[in-house]
Amino acid sequence: MARQWLPALAWVKTYNGTKFTEDSLAAVIVTIMLIPQSLAYALLAGLPAEMGLYASILPLVVYAFLGTSRVLSVGPVAVMSLMTAAALGSLGLAPEQYITAALTLAFMAGAMLMLLGALRLGFVANFMSHPVVTGFITASALIISVSQVQHLLGIESHGYTLFELLPSLWKSAGQLNWVTVMVSAPTLLWLFWSRNGVAKLLKGWGVSHSTAQMFSRISPVVSVVATTMIAWWFRLDEIGLATVGQVPTGLPSVTLPSFDMQMWRLLGGSAVLIATIGFVESISVAQGLAAKRRERINPDQELLALGSSNVATSFFGGFPVAGGFSRSVVNYDAGAATPAAGLIAALLMALATLLFVPLLVYLPKATLAATIIAAVWSLVDISILKTAWRFSKADFLAVLATIVLTLLAGVEIGVAAGVLVSLIVHLYKTSRPHVAVVGELPGTEHFRNAARHEVETHETILSIRIDESLYFANTRYLEDIIYAMVAKRPRLKHVILMCTAVNEIDMSAMESILAMNEHLDELDIKLHLSEVKGPVMDRLERGEFLTKLSGNVYLSQHQAVEALK
Amino acid sequence: MARQWLPALAWVKTYNGTKFTEDSLAAVIVTIMLIPQSLAYALLAGLPAEMGLYASILPLVVYAFLGTSRVLSVGPVAVMSLMTAAALGSLGLAPEQYITAALTLAFMAGAMLMLLGALRLGFVANFMSHPVVTGFITASALIISVSQVQHLLGIESHGYTLFELLPSLWKSAGQLNWVTVMVSAPTLLWLFWSRNGVAKLLKGWGVSHSTAQMFSRISPVVSVVATTMIAWWFRLDEIGLATVGQVPTGLPSVTLPSFDMQMWRLLGGSAVLIATIGFVESISVAQGLAAKRRERINPDQELLALGSSNVATSFFGGFPVAGGFSRSVVNYDAGAATPAAGLIAALLMALATLLFVPLLVYLPKATLAATIIAAVWSLVDISILKTAWRFSKADFLAVLATIVLTLLAGVEIGVAAGVLVSLIVHLYKTSRPHVAVVGELPGTEHFRNAARHEVETHETILSIRIDESLYFANTRYLEDIIYAMVAKRPRLKHVILMCTAVNEIDMSAMESILAMNEHLDELDIKLHLSEVKGPVMDRLERGEFLTKLSGNVYLSQHQAVEALK
Repeated sequence: MARQWLPALAWVKTYNGTKFTEDSLAAVIVTIMLIPQSLAYALLAGLPAEMGLYASILPLVVYAFLGTSRVLSVGPVAVMSLMTAAALGSLGLAPEQYITAALTLAFMAGAMLMLLGALRLGFVANFMSHPVVTGFITASALIISVSQVQHLLGIESHGYTLFELLPSLWKSAGQLNWVTVMVSAPTLLWLFWSRNGVAKLLKGWGVSHSTAQMFSRISPVVSVVATTMIAWWFRLDEIGLATVGQVPTGLPSVTLPSFDMQMWRLLGGSAVLIATIGFVESISVAQGLAAKRRERINPDQELLALGSSNVATSFFGGFPVAGGFSRSVVNYDAGAATPAAGLIAALLMALATLLFVPLLVYLPKATLAATIIAAVWSLVDISILKTAWRFSKADFLAVLATIVLTLLAGVEIGVAAGVLVSLIVHLYKTSRPHVAVVGELPGTEHFRNAARHEVETHETILSIRIDESLYFANTRYLEDIIYAMVAKRPRLKHVILMCTAVNEIDMSAMESILAMNEHLDELDIKLHLSEVKGPVMDRLERGEFLTKLSGNVYLSQHQAVEALK
Repeated sequence: MARQWLPALAWVKTYNGTKFTEDSLAAVIVTIMLIPQSLAYALLAGLPAEMGLYASILPLVVYAFLGTSRVLSVGPVAVMSLMTAAALGSLGLAPEQYITAALTLAFMAGAMLMLLGALRLGFVANFMSHPVVTGFITASALIISVSQVQHLLGIESHGYTLFELLPSLWKSAGQLNWVTVMVSAPTLLWLFWSRNGVAKLLKGWGVSHSTAQMFSRISPVVSVVATTMIAWWFRLDEIGLATVGQVPTGLPSVTLPSFDMQMWRLLGGSAVLIATIGFVESISVAQGLAAKRRERINPDQELLALGSSNVATSFFGGFPVAGGFSRSVVNYDAGAATPAAGLIAALLMALATLLFVPLLVYLPKATLAATIIAAVWSLVDISILKTAWRFSKADFLAVLATIVLTLLAGVEIGVAAGVLVSLIVHLYKTSRPHVAVVGELPGTEHFRNAARHEVETHETILSIRIDESLYFANTRYLEDIIYAMVAKRPRLKHVILMCTAVNEIDMSAMESILAMNEHLDELDIKLHLSEVKGPVMDRLERGEFLTKLSGNVYLSQHQAVEALK
């Protein structure tokens, strides 16, 4: 029981020196990668850079104790930061209020996740289909990239959709600052080249594959150090280069989210979406990595862990966090053995916060913008459109709606539209199930679609196979289609519904069959069922269905036809 | 083609004298029943009584030409009137604006239905399950009855939920008007007694069953005539009896719905719900009655017909209309042969409007209130709760939510909650499908659930049957459950997914299987499929699924196990 609520008990018992060494190594690498990313994502969220560092400490600690994944790394991630910015940006808040609102958003999203976890409602996250999530992340990454262009060029833009961003970039393009461009252009080139280039180069020098990979992963820190030094040396901030500037030093002090009802009402919808997206991203990453080691993730416990991480960070100067893809993969590749790696990384982040914050004065914002673009660019996957188109028009529609609406109408409308479209498309499909008139293959006891096979049918018997569970969304369609078939067959005496593919039946369907039964009875036609599955039969036996049915329930379609012909 | 858009062409060709006689008889009976009902429902909707008559003319004409049901009678119905009152009552409009808003609501609901019909989207109405509709109508009927108590007692109450109605009745109970009670009590008794009493009495006198039935159906008109005459004779209006009073005479003049964006925004949500409920009620009645005669209803054409009826009535002083249950059944029982019965009834209603409106001066509101209560009381079906409980807890939850929320929070929240709960419950069920480990029944080629039967299994092969279509809501659950099974079986070499009950597969599911495939491959476990249905296979063949799958696709589970063991 205790182990269920505190998964850490499982690994603490067998912890030893070897594991500590492995975990420490992974922690060092993750921390080096995280520092620039955390700063950058805070700026992306419209918050002071140091909040990115704050948000990277406590969530790691909380998750290490409560999470079921051994390698998931929880902290600021790109998409959540964009959603935070989009949620808060439109409210017109003063800087102080903006920070409180970000804390509140983290608290609300965290509390919701914890509530869902306590109620064991993790399944709600399943309503985001893979294609919708991929489409949403692709579109978000594009928006994020465009939103960072202002920092690369030293101009100003605003907005969270292409509709807002592009015209506002265009308008201020004239104020382009060349000093900024001379910092950002080489940084961007370095970041994109180093991704494969560093590893290739090092391997050329005889360095092992995994070490080379590690160095390429931490290459962003090189650009941070280099551009900060250059900016400081040449005092570039005095000739137009925007830098992070003076920030408070020391560890975060205790902060309080707002408990004002007015603010809660304003942020409610955004908190729901942020919580859902954060959970979906985390669980996908955790499940993917766990499967590689035959480990198990418990989704309800993950809700609790992720929720607690968000609540915790809201009290220590953070903003909404999630288990990020790139940070977790780096943690995994670097050989993290247990969640202790997260604890060590948290410690290192705290140290970094104490030591490095004063150095941020000269860190160019352009460097952080380039870091963001390089990081999110790997999330862009436009090919999802082609894949979806080939696979099914329904999935394509959902992906297209998600991408287009995210780009043009914003992240919240985009993701909501994606979920809605996939739900509606699913319901539409199951609301018009495949229904086949079947007949017996001569000489066998097999029944096949009469439209596709040469089968034996009878004028007085109509055998219908329904290839779907029966529930409210398809009962009316079914009545409709069956009445149409009956109207065409004047000599009909028996209708047999073959239920091999009926996995479920709800009350609407039961009532609908009874209504059909009654109407057919008035026309002197008996209604029968065959091959009803166990759970469906159990349910039908509970009401008066079987006594009201004019015909019988047969074990097999063959028996039914034999008895009635 | 023309016949598809104008179903009237089908019956006009073969129209003759016999049919005209049948239709005329039905029309007379329906009209006599409709007059008091129409007046009452207009008052229920918070509108002047004469609007009930207006709303009963044009919709009958329009539906006669466009509808596919031969007996559906379209006009004011109780639930739609309540919804209209609830939608408009909270807006705090002046009387003149209130009427315009009612016209606008009819126009918007009608336009939406026409649009859905043109786009062939009639299936959206399927999202209202039978139990939810029954629960909603039951709760609405209760609210309607309680809302009419004020007129029976000559006091005042307000509101559209029990929360509002009961306290407000309680507070003004002291002002009870005894003259009103002396009119309403006998009227109510007469209406409830006459329902069965008149028919029984007449049959006792040797009158035929059907004639007796007809007389009992038109008995409300007796109470209207009687109480109006008593009120006039004794000038009861001068001693506190509320009557309909002076109303404009003549046929309705042309009216215009509002095209003000502000009003459209206010009424949008209500219009969607009214349109949906109206369509669901109409199509249920139409389908039920058509099936009795082996006739066919076309749902998309019905959308068009019902939509046009609403749009038409919005230009001639009406309010939202639908195909009513009681009025259609009376039409059917009275022997209406063709939609011409509706045309004749419209003519008679127009005549009644011209002749009777002046007589309404002395018609007591208490009589109309009693008429409403008697009419809606037959819609109350509390037993739905018991039936649903017995059938499944999921359906019970949906019905309970609908009834409780309709009673306490109002019709709009009630019906929306019902639809939402049934959708969520359905998705929840399909998101955790039944998954069984199967094995071969010794000596046969049949595979059964290993937990229920003595079957043959192999340590290196895991055969899993999934009893549900695979789609985004259940892929993660499935991954989860399969990884759990794999983690328990260290010697596993092959996983076979038996797909007999998989009717559909979407892109999420396909990607999820590929992800499992990849992870299992890393553990040196091959993934296979067996008994894949035609449409699912077609889809899998489109992408690169089959080339990426580490194992094979087998025609039967038996072949799969034979090949792999």
